[in-house]
Amino acid sequence: MTRRLRLGMVGGGQGAFIGAVHRLAARIDNHYELVAGALSANAVRAAASAAELRLDPARSYTDYQEMARTEAARSDGIDVVAIVTPNHLHAPVATAFLQVGIHVICDKPLAISLAEGQALARLARQQNRLFALTHTYSGYPLVRHARALVAAGELGDLRVVQVEYAQDWLAEPLEQGSNKQAGWRTDPALAGPAGCLGDIGTHAYHLAGFVTGMLPSELAAELHTFVAGRRVDDHVQMLLRYANGARGMLWASQVASGEENGLKLRVYGSKASISFDQQHPNELWFTPLGGTAQRITRGRAAGSAAMHATRIPAGHPEGYLEAFAQLYSDAALQIAAIDAGLPIPAEAALLTTVEDGVAGHHFIDAALASHAAGGQWTAISTG
Amino acid sequence: MTRRLRLGMVGGGQGAFIGAVHRLAARIDNHYELVAGALSANAVRAAASAAELRLDPARSYTDYQEMARTEAARSDGIDVVAIVTPNHLHAPVATAFLQVGIHVICDKPLAISLAEGQALARLARQQNRLFALTHTYSGYPLVRHARALVAAGELGDLRVVQVEYAQDWLAEPLEQGSNKQAGWRTDPALAGPAGCLGDIGTHAYHLAGFVTGMLPSELAAELHTFVAGRRVDDHVQMLLRYANGARGMLWASQVASGEENGLKLRVYGSKASISFDQQHPNELWFTPLGGTAQRITRGRAAGSAAMHATRIPAGHPEGYLEAFAQLYSDAALQIAAIDAGLPIPAEAALLTTVEDGVAGHHFIDAALASHAAGGQWTAISTG
Amino acid sequence: MTRRLRLGMVGGGQGAFIGAVHRLAARIDNHYELVAGALSANAVRAAASAAELRLDPARSYTDYQEMARTEAARSDGIDVVAIVTPNHLHAPVATAFLQVGIHVICDKPLAISLAEGQALARLARQQNRLFALTHTYSGYPLVRHARALVAAGELGDLRVVQVEYAQDWLAEPLEQGSNKQAGWRTDPALAGPAGCLGDIGTHAYHLAGFVTGMLPSELAAELHTFVAGRRVDDHVQMLLRYANGARGMLWASQVASGEENGLKLRVYGSKASISFDQQHPNELWFTPLGGTAQRITRGRAAGSAAMHATRIPAGHPEGYLEAFAQLYSDAALQIAAIDAGLPIPAEAALLTTVEDGVAGHHFIDAALASHAAGGQWTAISTG
Amino acid sequence: MTRRLRLGMVGGGQGAFIGAVHRLAARIDNHYELVAGALSANAVRAAASAAELRLDPARSYTDYQEMARTEAARSDGIDVVAIVTPNHLHAPVATAFLQVGIHVICDKPLAISLAEGQALARLARQQNRLFALTHTYSGYPLVRHARALVAAGELGDLRVVQVEYAQDWLAEPLEQGSNKQAGWRTDPALAGPAGCLGDIGTHAYHLAGFVTGMLPSELAAELHTFVAGRRVDDHVQMLLRYANGARGMLWASQVASGEENGLKLRVYGSKASISFDQQHPNELWFTPLGGTAQRITRGRAAGSAAMHATRIPAGHPEGYLEAFAQLYSDAALQIAAIDAGLPIPAEAALLTTVEDGVAGHHFIDAALASHAAGGQWTAISTG
Repeated sequence: MTRRLRLGMVGGGQGAFIGAVHRLAARIDNHYELVAGALSANAVRAAASAAELRLDPARSYTDYQEMARTEAARSDGIDVVAIVTPNHLHAPVATAFLQVGIHVICDKPLAISLAEGQALARLARQQNRLFALTHTYSGYPLVRHARALVAAGELGDLRVVQVEYAQDWLAEPLEQGSNKQAGWRTDPALAGPAGCLGDIGTHAYHLAGFVTGMLPSELAAELHTFVAGRRVDDHVQMLLRYANGARGMLWASQVASGEENGLKLRVYGSKASISFDQQHPNELWFTPLGGTAQRITRGRAAGSAAMHATRIPAGHPEGYLEAFAQLYSDAALQIAAIDAGLPIPAEAALLTTVEDGVAGHHFIDAALASHAAGGQWTAISTG
Repeated sequence: MTRRLRLGMVGGGQGAFIGAVHRLAARIDNHYELVAGALSANAVRAAASAAELRLDPARSYTDYQEMARTEAARSDGIDVVAIVTPNHLHAPVATAFLQVGIHVICDKPLAISLAEGQALARLARQQNRLFALTHTYSGYPLVRHARALVAAGELGDLRVVQVEYAQDWLAEPLEQGSNKQAGWRTDPALAGPAGCLGDIGTHAYHLAGFVTGMLPSELAAELHTFVAGRRVDDHVQMLLRYANGARGMLWASQVASGEENGLKLRVYGSKASISFDQQHPNELWFTPLGGTAQRITRGRAAGSAAMHATRIPAGHPEGYLEAFAQLYSDAALQIAAIDAGLPIPAEAALLTTVEDGVAGHHFIDAALASHAAGGQWTAISTG
Repeated sequence: MTRRLRLGMVGGGQGAFIGAVHRLAARIDNHYELVAGALSANAVRAAASAAELRLDPARSYTDYQEMARTEAARSDGIDVVAIVTPNHLHAPVATAFLQVGIHVICDKPLAISLAEGQALARLARQQNRLFALTHTYSGYPLVRHARALVAAGELGDLRVVQVEYAQDWLAEPLEQGSNKQAGWRTDPALAGPAGCLGDIGTHAYHLAGFVTGMLPSELAAELHTFVAGRRVDDHVQMLLRYANGARGMLWASQVASGEENGLKLRVYGSKASISFDQQHPNELWFTPLGGTAQRITRGRAAGSAAMHATRIPAGHPEGYLEAFAQLYSDAALQIAAIDAGLPIPAEAALLTTVEDGVAGHHFIDAALASHAAGGQWTAISTG
Repeated sequence: MTRRLRLGMVGGGQGAFIGAVHRLAARIDNHYELVAGALSANAVRAAASAAELRLDPARSYTDYQEMARTEAARSDGIDVVAIVTPNHLHAPVATAFLQVGIHVICDKPLAISLAEGQALARLARQQNRLFALTHTYSGYPLVRHARALVAAGELGDLRVVQVEYAQDWLAEPLEQGSNKQAGWRTDPALAGPAGCLGDIGTHAYHLAGFVTGMLPSELAAELHTFVAGRRVDDHVQMLLRYANGARGMLWASQVASGEENGLKLRVYGSKASISFDQQHPNELWFTPLGGTAQRITRGRAAGSAAMHATRIPAGHPEGYLEAFAQLYSDAALQIAAIDAGLPIPAEAALLTTVEDGVAGHHFIDAALASHAAGGQWTAISTG
């Protein structure tokens, strides 16, 4: 890369969790410099946040629309914006920046409704700008290696998919206190109608699809809310059917006492299985039918897909921030290619797209519909 | 115990797997001596098996009916019979022995149909004989400790039950070759209409019920057969609802490449969770909400229920055979109490009963019905 | 086996730990029946213990000399005696039985001094009787598989041996209270001059030798006693040199807070390494140089040495008692061969011998000598 | 921090491993900007490396002496230099920058001899500049928590220290091929007389000292070289004695087939023990005497020392790069304090100092001396 990309950020002011993670991820591989932001709609907080990040005060905005217009007009305007707001702003903000031709890196989910997400997808295609959705876990080297193993047929025909994402941070009614994140994440107006389903169920769904290379065709789902007074689901359980005959189960819960961030995927094929736990991301288990389990480690996993996403040797653990950084690095490679009119390089092609985000909305809608219909098997739309 | 109980066995001739396990389990704690058997319906094989086991030839039978009559008539006749035949014979054999007043230890499942199981339950109650079903995994000390933790309220209100039982030994069509066990287990006439569901799904169901102290009220199930030509299911996935509002999932598969005998249970309550993997039975994980995971080990787990079922100190692993032996030991204590007209001692009361076996048939029938109805939520009967 | 061997026992009366383990181990594979015992030198306790074990009162002795004479004279006298007394009686008791031609299975260590052990070895050779020392851990199937892997050259040239045995049960001065086992094990008159060194250091030493097929030629040792007032060492640390140039370390401690029974062995060769933890005896790790770790499981480990010592399929955990039982089973095979004048069958040949016991005494003496000489490198004698 | 510190680097040109790690670590928490470098003594390589890092060509040097003089003279000259050269240049380069008043962050070891290290320590004290040695592993939050647990007396009196560092990357004679890193690390002129001992033995020694808060007073060591033709040791094993009576063992090897970066520490006290494996840095085991093991996780470990060094919640793994970044962040806090004439803030005080580096040289020298004297117990000097 001949220069670092100029990055802007919408959201992520003081006290926000995910904004700080995006900034850190953007720094790790050194392809970006943060130069502008609408870090908060609150002017005082926006200014204080910008100062802390050493932004030029002239490039600290309180209105993302103004930021989009102004930056687009500057000769040194931002190349790409990172959107780290609550969910309900993802689509409007992304729309504003895409319309002025600025690339977008957006926290998931894509939007708060399918229609909104589809509109965004159309716009992104029209504008020929990058639209990367930060499904962090697909940035892990061994997740990419898992995908490569499946694609190479090492598992044989896929038969069973078991994916789960269990946390305990919402086991009590935090949103009734002062926890800001709990507040917006359990508010349908800000987070969308799906609670746990949208927040982490979609991560599980995406991970399974990323690794297996296939999405289920049908699901039978049940949502549940354990915490009294909560306005969205905090527990989701469902059965899956795939077009090739495979079966699967997906569980997501935010009330699973003792679970920290338990995203786990197991895929069983006719020849072998793999198992991955994002809490131990430096190892991937591969076990042949009737055979001996192999603990593949990051840095000793042969494949090029994994090596592209690794920085340091085996035995020197990488983690969540490096997985996140990988998304930013791949985005930088894609932006460079798009800006140069070149094809996306293969090694950077694994980024989650706006279409993947639309698929996530189809998943959410199918789960909501199945649940509403008493757990009936429900087709998951595509397109 | 003033004397060892005289044990007879039906089934378990040369080459059988589970019969040898029962005999070994019966020896471990030294409460039994094997003195009679109808080890095979084939006379030559029965005699050879009896000789290998050093049985008195006069007490080696080829007909279990004759064995029941003859042993009942002897002054030194057997106290108890172990039934280790293929499933379709469980009920007829048990009936024959109960009718002549002999206690029964029976491999699971109880029968090959609910009606058969219910008839057996009635008979057992009438005869006031022990009827113990060998759900092995409830013999593990830490499974009993898990149950005690739940019962003591250490988990708070139960919210989520996750149970699974994954194996790979039927991932290929073994029954089309010479594997005798695969043959009868996939033959509906010998094993009943449920394949994987009946064979290991019931183990998972029983374990979850044993630990949580509650059975689900409804399920939504899907069965599947992955191996072409197989006549029963080899994969089961289902959602569960409990009367207290808890939710759950159950997965059982015999085609999960790389899995050996993966029976795992996790229970999440409002205050804490537990996790148990029968492949590592000397440890039980207990994690409070928001807290630090504790690895409770057999022998250092305080409770009396666990200590009753443990033989050697922590760090000296016990295993599957000791869990099995515990069932035999508890059965011996129960038989002594029944024969003496005394109440069952509390520490020996955790044995699986004929009523548990009936509950297993209700589970099987509900799962078959739900599957047949396209995965509809289906009530699980009781009684 | 045409009949079960008649087993006698010296020691192991009520309340003793290891005697009960021996009896259980002897039962598991059904090659023995316990028919006689000198279970305690205390007549009341001996009788009560014998009654509990349902021994013929005529064959319950208080004097092992009398037991040896009497049993040798009976036509149905014992074939073999199990010696489970405190250490100082091992040699006298074994001598008494060997002299009358009775086979011996003896808890480790062989004796309380090298001279005593050597005399015993000579006697055992003269009498051509079995003398099996119960180094339990060599009965684990995967320990035997580890040995086979080394012997087959799968590790290349051996370079590094790391072995340790850590417990915490003597972290406090239990011997100053009423703990009988702590009492005799820390009394030099009853246990010998080596405390932790003799009790568990020898297990570690034996295991390393068993797996690697080689014993070190020199050691540099330091003993230490952490608990005030204790009369023997409770911690041992040492460096090892092997004749082939390999290096090693051995650590044994009985004051390692939090450790239950942590016997662990790692062996590194020029091509690969293996790692075994007896607390997880159903798995053995094998990792090639620069390669992927493989978790070999009992029952899926191909080799015949492991399969000879396994009872049930992979995923059904076996444990400490089965490892112990394996020693008894191999002893039964050896006794049958000796009595028939046949060569020891290869699969039963891995039993620990009286010569291994002598090697253990050479190890103890070298460690004591090195420590006394300020940690000087000291040759370990052979023969 | 009001501004980012201006960072220079000596060493770390294209192809170097550790230089890239330092730069990445410096970026993570955003306290530094890299503005100058003498990245290689080779002019072409220095220029290419500088261009790749987008340095101002005017601030790309080939001579570190010139760099020190020039940067010291600039009003926007570097605040601090990172030294990432082979070992033999650490002291000369550090001297050059300290003499012109520039703070130093130096890769370990401090120097290639004790005398050189001591001279450097005197200079650093005189100049009142930061001298931070990058013992990476002390940057892990749970290592700091372990230290805090020990300091708070949670382990009781310390009794046993077990530390090891095992790798396999030098199991074959890589230095005889084209591996540049293997070349200089096994060349006594460039790396110093200690091979594995100096490279990773010192890491193990430092980690044990950091956590326990105490250094051993004596050691008995043996070095060994397994690979033919190698000019330095590739395996070290030693026994340790501490002034408080504690005992310990240290093992370091670079020929341990299958080991990636196995730095592990266990500390046993009279009340409890801790265990840490840097390959799983998000968990720390704490086990009371006779009690239940607790898996403390990063982010759920209460202490302030750990929280100061953590970025993201429990269950989102951090790794080696974040540990490294922590050293840079603490260095930034210390530099700000030094430059402002303020005391070092307590939370940033855990950085490895030049005195720690001198202690490492005392360790190396004692080990070399003990080995030369046939493994004799040898005092470890201080001061």
